[in-house]
Amino acid sequence: MSDKSKQPLVGIVMGSKSDWETMRAAAAILDEFGVPYEAKVSSAHRAPEMTAEWAHSAEQRGLEVVIAAAGLAAHLPGVVAAQTLLPVLGVPMEGKLLGGLDALLSIVQMPGGVPVGTLAVGSHGAKNAALLAVRILAVSRPELREKLRKYHTDMAEKVARESLS
Amino acid sequence: MSDKSKQPLVGIVMGSKSDWETMRAAAAILDEFGVPYEAKVSSAHRAPEMTAEWAHSAEQRGLEVVIAAAGLAAHLPGVVAAQTLLPVLGVPMEGKLLGGLDALLSIVQMPGGVPVGTLAVGSHGAKNAALLAVRILAVSRPELREKLRKYHTDMAEKVARESLS
Amino acid sequence: MSDKSKQPLVGIVMGSKSDWETMRAAAAILDEFGVPYEAKVSSAHRAPEMTAEWAHSAEQRGLEVVIAAAGLAAHLPGVVAAQTLLPVLGVPMEGKLLGGLDALLSIVQMPGGVPVGTLAVGSHGAKNAALLAVRILAVSRPELREKLRKYHTDMAEKVARESLS
Amino acid sequence: MSDKSKQPLVGIVMGSKSDWETMRAAAAILDEFGVPYEAKVSSAHRAPEMTAEWAHSAEQRGLEVVIAAAGLAAHLPGVVAAQTLLPVLGVPMEGKLLGGLDALLSIVQMPGGVPVGTLAVGSHGAKNAALLAVRILAVSRPELREKLRKYHTDMAEKVARESLS
Amino acid sequence: MSDKSKQPLVGIVMGSKSDWETMRAAAAILDEFGVPYEAKVSSAHRAPEMTAEWAHSAEQRGLEVVIAAAGLAAHLPGVVAAQTLLPVLGVPMEGKLLGGLDALLSIVQMPGGVPVGTLAVGSHGAKNAALLAVRILAVSRPELREKLRKYHTDMAEKVARESLS
Amino acid sequence: MSDKSKQPLVGIVMGSKSDWETMRAAAAILDEFGVPYEAKVSSAHRAPEMTAEWAHSAEQRGLEVVIAAAGLAAHLPGVVAAQTLLPVLGVPMEGKLLGGLDALLSIVQMPGGVPVGTLAVGSHGAKNAALLAVRILAVSRPELREKLRKYHTDMAEKVARESLS
Amino acid sequence: MSDKSKQPLVGIVMGSKSDWETMRAAAAILDEFGVPYEAKVSSAHRAPEMTAEWAHSAEQRGLEVVIAAAGLAAHLPGVVAAQTLLPVLGVPMEGKLLGGLDALLSIVQMPGGVPVGTLAVGSHGAKNAALLAVRILAVSRPELREKLRKYHTDMAEKVARESLS
Amino acid sequence: MSDKSKQPLVGIVMGSKSDWETMRAAAAILDEFGVPYEAKVSSAHRAPEMTAEWAHSAEQRGLEVVIAAAGLAAHLPGVVAAQTLLPVLGVPMEGKLLGGLDALLSIVQMPGGVPVGTLAVGSHGAKNAALLAVRILAVSRPELREKLRKYHTDMAEKVARESLS
Repeated sequence: MSDKSKQPLVGIVMGSKSDWETMRAAAAILDEFGVPYEAKVSSAHRAPEMTAEWAHSAEQRGLEVVIAAAGLAAHLPGVVAAQTLLPVLGVPMEGKLLGGLDALLSIVQMPGGVPVGTLAVGSHGAKNAALLAVRILAVSRPELREKLRKYHTDMAEKVARESLS
Repeated sequence: MSDKSKQPLVGIVMGSKSDWETMRAAAAILDEFGVPYEAKVSSAHRAPEMTAEWAHSAEQRGLEVVIAAAGLAAHLPGVVAAQTLLPVLGVPMEGKLLGGLDALLSIVQMPGGVPVGTLAVGSHGAKNAALLAVRILAVSRPELREKLRKYHTDMAEKVARESLS
Repeated sequence: MSDKSKQPLVGIVMGSKSDWETMRAAAAILDEFGVPYEAKVSSAHRAPEMTAEWAHSAEQRGLEVVIAAAGLAAHLPGVVAAQTLLPVLGVPMEGKLLGGLDALLSIVQMPGGVPVGTLAVGSHGAKNAALLAVRILAVSRPELREKLRKYHTDMAEKVARESLS
Repeated sequence: MSDKSKQPLVGIVMGSKSDWETMRAAAAILDEFGVPYEAKVSSAHRAPEMTAEWAHSAEQRGLEVVIAAAGLAAHLPGVVAAQTLLPVLGVPMEGKLLGGLDALLSIVQMPGGVPVGTLAVGSHGAKNAALLAVRILAVSRPELREKLRKYHTDMAEKVARESLS
Repeated sequence: MSDKSKQPLVGIVMGSKSDWETMRAAAAILDEFGVPYEAKVSSAHRAPEMTAEWAHSAEQRGLEVVIAAAGLAAHLPGVVAAQTLLPVLGVPMEGKLLGGLDALLSIVQMPGGVPVGTLAVGSHGAKNAALLAVRILAVSRPELREKLRKYHTDMAEKVARESLS
Repeated sequence: MSDKSKQPLVGIVMGSKSDWETMRAAAAILDEFGVPYEAKVSSAHRAPEMTAEWAHSAEQRGLEVVIAAAGLAAHLPGVVAAQTLLPVLGVPMEGKLLGGLDALLSIVQMPGGVPVGTLAVGSHGAKNAALLAVRILAVSRPELREKLRKYHTDMAEKVARESLS
Repeated sequence: MSDKSKQPLVGIVMGSKSDWETMRAAAAILDEFGVPYEAKVSSAHRAPEMTAEWAHSAEQRGLEVVIAAAGLAAHLPGVVAAQTLLPVLGVPMEGKLLGGLDALLSIVQMPGGVPVGTLAVGSHGAKNAALLAVRILAVSRPELREKLRKYHTDMAEKVARESLS
Repeated sequence: MSDKSKQPLVGIVMGSKSDWETMRAAAAILDEFGVPYEAKVSSAHRAPEMTAEWAHSAEQRGLEVVIAAAGLAAHLPGVVAAQTLLPVLGVPMEGKLLGGLDALLSIVQMPGGVPVGTLAVGSHGAKNAALLAVRILAVSRPELREKLRKYHTDMAEKVARESLS
């Protein structure tokens, strides 16, 4: 797992190294769209200062979107959102207690003032976080918009091919 | 409730007229930041064609972000996301069965391929959807970024003033 | 998995090819009752136009009942119900987050105006969707009613045979 | 609350007199479509024999669809479905414990063999149960199909009129 | 699995043959206490008449307590309780959707008038249903009360032996 | 609220004085059936010794059934069941967090060895706990069995009278 | 609401001024036991730096226990626990979505390494957080232990007085 | 599993021998910090007197903190808290029904007056219960405070080393 040589536009931050297993689905999408990104393990609770520093400097490092993944109490996306002005997308990790519903609620129920756009639990969510980041970046990048359009056409054609009747 | 005279950048779409009660919290934020928006009642189920048309033309109308609100089965945000390439933010409406948890899960659990960035249930979520839209727009608009920075400073100062000790 | 040579009366539509694993329980019942059916993979989100087209033409193709299966956000049954006047029966697929409860609520909580008759999660639900379709078709087909009556008698006799005491 | 003078086609049965408050939404739809119906309070637990008798004779009385409403343990729809071959639609009543989710699960989780097509909790569900009954009856009644078509057109037009932008 | 030669005092009825895997924990306790019982597979939905007959005649057959097990919609205990005056104890079977919570709520949420004393989901519940039956029978059988007393003493001693410190 | 002059057969114990509001539904049933009872407020946590003493002496005081009510963590029924050999029936009180589901699970999920027969949350459960106590007492009291039989006949007749059609 | 003139031993921090309504139950207990405390409104998300500063200096200010209250995403207790070595007790505030269960899970599901001892939702939890703080302080303060002992004796006597029989 | 030769400061009590599998994570932390402890299997329900005795004498035996673990109905922590004045920390065990949420709610929802500081379900919770015990003991033990400080520094450094970018 390595950063692209080009200036990263998306920062992926996750609460634990084991979250990468899930978050590589996000990285795969960014690779597919040619969007450079950086990936970082930090922890809102075990390394609060490193997390704060990473979030505070994200804007200056040229990032335009942050994807933050966490499980259980899942404070990381909110803590990052409180310390950057970039759009933050949250991905809840699966868990034993309620299959990740606890993490989902910890991420999505942010108080008014500090938003986190939350995606589905697990790798579906990771993939979609990256696609939402691409949609955001594509607003001002026509060539990315075209790649997205092709992605949707391909997706519909794949469904049509798989169609049973 | 009226559209701004300037070209709208954000489209707010909701499944029922009664959702406006909640979604005006989003409009208030956009007004506060001077972001022009349009508001629309449509229904994924009762007016599927109008919804499809609105979503398909959103990009051409110059919108850059869509905020979609719905309750109960809450299909609207996903249905819109399937028919536009713009970033779509979903706001679940409160409900009787599980306080809106059902709507939240209907919105956030989108399958891989078609993302909806989901916010909290109700007016907290509406307010934060607008703030997330502002963060997205601010990526390429430095003056909006400055307004956001001031918003955060003001928020911290307000907390400090209200502090009890 | 193939359509019957006779004019299909039931359309089975599902959001993903992998749902067939569950939905073959519906097909097996229709086969057992000699009810011709067609099966189709489409996706409310990844192939919205194909889905709309399939739903719009269902009535004209001679279908009398639609069975729609979906998991996660599970919008397919509602999206189909919005675009046909045929009775639509929904089958939630199992899922990791809440064992399929999320899909169940996405399907059953339709707003007033566009009904989906919802069955249990998974293959029990698939089987029962087919049996409910048979009950619906049997209202105007006495020979099907007789087959149903025999099915119930056989079921009761099977329970009696298995009875322990 | 009175039965139509014409031969009832739909039977509405509910577990308690107080459920009528909710179920009159179903009756209103049937009245609107000119579908004759009968309404009955019975109880799976407090009057099991009357319930069995009502269910057993439903077919002979000329009913084509049964709508069964119940709250709490909510056994009535399943108990009725076990004793008739007609299609049975279930409507969960609201409740204190889980807002009606308990009733919903009691109705929808029927074992393979005896289907109940379940609608949303409360009056949304009651209204949609009646609309699903109309869809079922309309399969073999073209004039009812036309009324349904008009109902959907009116609904879409109403949404368009209410639309804000 | 066989009935005792002596007059059964407890009737164990379950919705499906597969429930015996769980309910043998109840039978084991009854064997341990020397309480004769009968075991029966019946189904509230697939064999409603056999179920009614079994319940109606339970009292005359000399049973004093009924233990009824069911999963999913789990109507059996309530349906039996509606057709006998004997005390009925319900045991929810495990399930995929909510681990058996759905069955538990279907059994325990009986309306006022027809009680089912409900135990825990699965084999803990099966074992405890039998122990509660023994407590009930022991009220008028001193020798059973003594066995119970010994059972509790043994249980406490076993805990003491296993104690770590 | 007063004990009957006759030897109490049922003991009603509740965790807080405010639970009486709910539990008087149990007392009303016992009064209706002429079953003498005693009522007691004790607390598993705030008065553990008084609770233990009450439970230990219940059998000697001539009680044959215990009904124990508690909310929130709801340990009282289990704590009482651990210290008596009488059958213990538990009634969960309503609560804010999950409408009483938390109390229900605290009562019903007893480990193997110490059973509590659990009823529905709130006054439905209170009423049914008393009716289950009556069923238990009626096993060896034919006149009580006859009263129960009449109670069920009256209930069915009342449903028949209230029936709408 | 004011700090005691004596050196505070307990710090009460809450995410919003409106939480004081609930948290005054904690303050009342500390007053009753004569334990000096400070109260502070801060916000993990809207004022992250003030929160970090308060947490970092808590130990030096002489606090021995921290009580942190928060609702919704409820990150405050965890964020504080990450930035102090003092024992942190968390109190979830009631909420609309799941009655506070979401806040409870956000607080209690902390990852291994950074503990928060969590109490019940709402004012019961607030009161008990203060009592747990008193138990902690009492370990090395015999006179506080005696007050606690008296508190428990009084509580048991109050239950005895309220007892109904 | 054995007690330290030094005077135990922490008592670990668990409802069943099988809980040790989870609770050894607590013991490992106490060993790492050099905090002597005792471990005990007891049961609130199967051995209520041994439990009461253990709780009553905990203070005199020199314990300063109690960690109590239980699953299912999970009464042990509350029952212990009712019979000691020491701070009690509760650890819910995983379970089948709701993954341990039932145990969590049974422990955390204690009524006002008798607090249990609750940790996460399973071994995360066990580890954190021990760390919270260490934080409590460290208030009056500077050398333990220093060990804690080092523990947090190590934890942050470990996160930094594992960091991906």
